Amino acid sequence: MTNYKHIFSQAIERLHSEGRYRVFIDILRNKGAYPNARCFHGHNGPKPITVWCSNDYLAMGQHPDVIAAMEEALHDVGAGSGGTRNIGGNTHYHINLEAELADLHGKEAALLFTSGYVSNEATLATLAKLLPGCIIFSDELNHASMIAGIRNSGCEKVVFRHNDVEHLRELLEAADPEAPKLIAFESVYSMDGDVAPIAEFCDLADEFNALTYLDEVHAVGMYGPRGGGISDRDAVANRLTIIEGTLGKAFGVMGGYITADQMIVDVIRSYAPGFIFTTSLSPVLVAGALASVRHLKASSAEREGQQAAAANLKRLMAEAGLPVMPSTTHIVPLMVGDPVRAKKISDILLAEYGVYVQPINYPTVPRGTERLRFTPGPAHTEEMMVDLVAALVEIWSRMELELAKAA
Amino acid sequence: MTNYKHIFSQAIERLHSEGRYRVFIDILRNKGAYPNARCFHGHNGPKPITVWCSNDYLAMGQHPDVIAAMEEALHDVGAGSGGTRNIGGNTHYHINLEAELADLHGKEAALLFTSGYVSNEATLATLAKLLPGCIIFSDELNHASMIAGIRNSGCEKVVFRHNDVEHLRELLEAADPEAPKLIAFESVYSMDGDVAPIAEFCDLADEFNALTYLDEVHAVGMYGPRGGGISDRDAVANRLTIIEGTLGKAFGVMGGYITADQMIVDVIRSYAPGFIFTTSLSPVLVAGALASVRHLKASSAEREGQQAAAANLKRLMAEAGLPVMPSTTHIVPLMVGDPVRAKKISDILLAEYGVYVQPINYPTVPRGTERLRFTPGPAHTEEMMVDLVAALVEIWSRMELELAKAA
Ligand SMILES: Cc1ncc(COP(=O)(O)O)c(C=O)c1O
Ligand SMILES: Cc1ncc(COP(=O)(O)O)c(C=O)c1O
Repeated sequence: MTNYKHIFSQAIERLHSEGRYRVFIDILRNKGAYPNARCFHGHNGPKPITVWCSNDYLAMGQHPDVIAAMEEALHDVGAGSGGTRNIGGNTHYHINLEAELADLHGKEAALLFTSGYVSNEATLATLAKLLPGCIIFSDELNHASMIAGIRNSGCEKVVFRHNDVEHLRELLEAADPEAPKLIAFESVYSMDGDVAPIAEFCDLADEFNALTYLDEVHAVGMYGPRGGGISDRDAVANRLTIIEGTLGKAFGVMGGYITADQMIVDVIRSYAPGFIFTTSLSPVLVAGALASVRHLKASSAEREGQQAAAANLKRLMAEAGLPVMPSTTHIVPLMVGDPVRAKKISDILLAEYGVYVQPINYPTVPRGTERLRFTPGPAHTEEMMVDLVAALVEIWSRMELELAKAA
Repeated sequence: MTNYKHIFSQAIERLHSEGRYRVFIDILRNKGAYPNARCFHGHNGPKPITVWCSNDYLAMGQHPDVIAAMEEALHDVGAGSGGTRNIGGNTHYHINLEAELADLHGKEAALLFTSGYVSNEATLATLAKLLPGCIIFSDELNHASMIAGIRNSGCEKVVFRHNDVEHLRELLEAADPEAPKLIAFESVYSMDGDVAPIAEFCDLADEFNALTYLDEVHAVGMYGPRGGGISDRDAVANRLTIIEGTLGKAFGVMGGYITADQMIVDVIRSYAPGFIFTTSLSPVLVAGALASVRHLKASSAEREGQQAAAANLKRLMAEAGLPVMPSTTHIVPLMVGDPVRAKKISDILLAEYGVYVQPINYPTVPRGTERLRFTPGPAHTEEMMVDLVAALVEIWSRMELELAKAA
């Protein structure tokens, strides 16, 4: 007889013993004063903190246009959509946002999903299922949602070394020339902050007649003259078959999407269970995302502020000898290399310094590369950064961790 | 060389030729006046319509408490959560709603997901993966999201005839007694409106040492003294291992959840990619859902209004000789049996009568059982129902469809 309790408690025990059992920090952000927030975790009342790990990268979650648009939709049409896209849940807001996103990426059409996770899972699984014998070439550091979609497609999966053009070429050469092929990768890898060689991957796709799927989740809103992501910055959006993004990070709201030509969007719209069989995004969220996308198409101030903040924090950390990783983007990762130590540093920062930065452990990053990941944005001040770096240096020496010689 | 365009256009062609290519109706609901709405589809300007197919069953999407709570959260903390539950996206709202939902179902704990779809997919796939050799017994009419979770678990799946206790018993008897087992089913089946024999299924689960998973998506808020669903009404919630629900239908907002004992919730929280690797529900939605759940725990007026409306509409349809299906719940399905005809009736209702009811085609229901599905609620008036039935009778005779002798 199966002892379910025993099996489940062992599963939890494994996490504790590896030092990666997750305790969620209970916070509320202060709209208008972000990155300031209140923390309820382990305190009697809320304690003021500074948030350093949010993916609301540009603080658009508190932008007056976004808030006003959501409030208007709330009062115009109410809280939820009340149905799937096909059964009562297709609103004028959804249609307008899809048009706006298609335009953002210079594509014919777009399709909304309840999240970026679902957009990746549903699109990759459905696309590959429609192509019998499809081989999916997947970057080894692809996000869990892409991996889920690829696995659920049931297709053959071939993993190439991270951002490695030569390795991908070898694998394409070794594959059956007649088989349908899909190359799936991200633009900005959010845990390291490096960027894919998109144009080179597109060259290979042309050469080997492969479709391309680009996750721009950590780039939309933040790169390119209109915030269309790295493919916008590098002017290669037209070469990609599908560009995927989220409304929950730089756009500050929630939801996900793909953009592509009309026919591919129609196929996913018509065949993807994860799109079809679920209540559509609340019109309140859609209205907020629409305002956010429109604002960031026209305004580069947030992008410039973010780049300046990231450069500044990286410089301050490097000057202090902290092991900041070589990111070329807005992501500022600090290597720790051990889950227990990463959690301890994070705990001290929160308890003693009012600094909130979550430790990043396996399975989000490979074991042995546990880290702290900072996401400075236009709302983080120079003073906050100086305080943060001083706190880190103090903790580093308290814990007898190594500091590099000042650069 | 693969001709991708050709493959995709054939996939779309198949839908057209079967008469089940979906065109989404573009509408906006009128908050405060629901089921009244505006339709933009095929018109120059918005045209007033009455919505008869929404899953905002109790009109909670326009309830003043829900709107006020969302507005307050929007101004307190902003648009989105800015992170996954583990990385900055765990707010006080989330914690409070999980406590409220656990209490609603009399369970130790609850866990929020971005949708009901994701809660089913993520929980079923993860649970079964943690139980090596698990056999999942699945009702043949289970929802696409449960089917996805079961398939993605990679476990053996055994399908039992819809709501058939004897068949399930036979299948359990034939299975390896040592294998872990999970029985997955729904309470209210949303396309037929019938109800599962929950207690009998629980008896079998006890007898054969199986876990039980109940989808109460079309029952939460609507059945039981506090809106805990059919398992609340039948006082069997404590016998079920996991109860799953949505915040996007009777609660009027968006999101999904499971409730179970602390250990199972902790296991899903810790292992399910669909929970871990995605931006958490916007606190604005969570605040709205919290107000909605709390209201419906205390108030039965909406539930009574809905039951009265459904009984009334069923009676009016039966008296008119329309082929209303034998639903025992708030769902009022009208059998058509052909996708093209179902769409035509729906088109005439919208164009000539300002009535919006979506045709329900394959794959949402089996082929040959295409239907119209009405969801009357407390906000649908007697007059609206009389008008609706008159319109249906006119269309039925115009299309030379059969009307039964008046009962
Ligand atoms: C690369 C990548 N893709 C997709 C997602 C999922 O997007 P969302 O949070 O909108 O579900 C994430 C993070 O959550 C991500 O990091
Ligand atoms: C039985 C059932 N379960 C789950 C879902 C998914 O819930 P949600 O709309 O919250 O994704 C639905 C419908 O959408 C459903 O009908």
